[in-house]
Amino acid sequence: MTAPIRYAEDYTPGQVFDVGSYAFTAEEIIAFSREWDPHPFHIDEDAAKQTMFGGLIASGWHTALVMMRMLHQGGFLSLETSIGSPGHEELKWLRPVRPGELLRGQVVVNHVKLSKSRPELGFVNCTATLTNPAGEVAYLLTSNAIIKTRGG
Amino acid sequence: MTAPIRYAEDYTPGQVFDVGSYAFTAEEIIAFSREWDPHPFHIDEDAAKQTMFGGLIASGWHTALVMMRMLHQGGFLSLETSIGSPGHEELKWLRPVRPGELLRGQVVVNHVKLSKSRPELGFVNCTATLTNPAGEVAYLLTSNAIIKTRGG
Repeated sequence: MTAPIRYAEDYTPGQVFDVGSYAFTAEEIIAFSREWDPHPFHIDEDAAKQTMFGGLIASGWHTALVMMRMLHQGGFLSLETSIGSPGHEELKWLRPVRPGELLRGQVVVNHVKLSKSRPELGFVNCTATLTNPAGEVAYLLTSNAIIKTRGG
Repeated sequence: MTAPIRYAEDYTPGQVFDVGSYAFTAEEIIAFSREWDPHPFHIDEDAAKQTMFGGLIASGWHTALVMMRMLHQGGFLSLETSIGSPGHEELKWLRPVRPGELLRGQVVVNHVKLSKSRPELGFVNCTATLTNPAGEVAYLLTSNAIIKTRGG
């Protein structure tokens, strides 16, 4: 897929991007969490059954990474213009994410601000979500993406 | 290291935990970012020199994972009592993180609330930081950790 290069001026409030879908396997949930976040309910199916979650769930950080990858691969961010982010206003893990659930990624542009002091940069405020098969938002991130301007 | 098991009642406002230190190598920054966050300034030393960062920097998500692992390994969280988190109030990448910089991890407890509706659970609000060799906070996370109570 060759996505168009998007500059800050190309994002407009209310714009919606569908950025793909993803389902975790139990194996990758366990492998990732053993390295970074070894809660029993992320790394051991039997132990997970004894917890309040009733079974294996993905680490929230793993979920966040899948969303990040979708922002790249789904054509929301362009490698030529994206400068990263200073952080996030909201990061919410609203529902547990279980193996095999197909998560659908979407991004909505909230507002766009071109920098006055640095005309080569703009700030694209957006909310990215992963929605589970029950139609519930499992993960929500509201963030400012720093994007190069066309005019700068 | 055998850390004590910490219950919600064991955390008190103002408590400070030193949770270890970590320095990224260029190789691991590149390998991680290729998989999850392939901005040129995370995956290519030469390309990174041409960007506003002037060299390779770690993906903010990679930094967040190192902090998460410190919360486990540094004895702030206990696997027996930690139930995860519903998300974060603040997540800030304040300074670029470069290969070889030794980051020092610290956690401060802001406040602790025992659940009224679910006496087996408490909410430990804390701010976790990674500080670079210049004494600047590079990463800051304010979060509610859900922790089992001793009394529940």
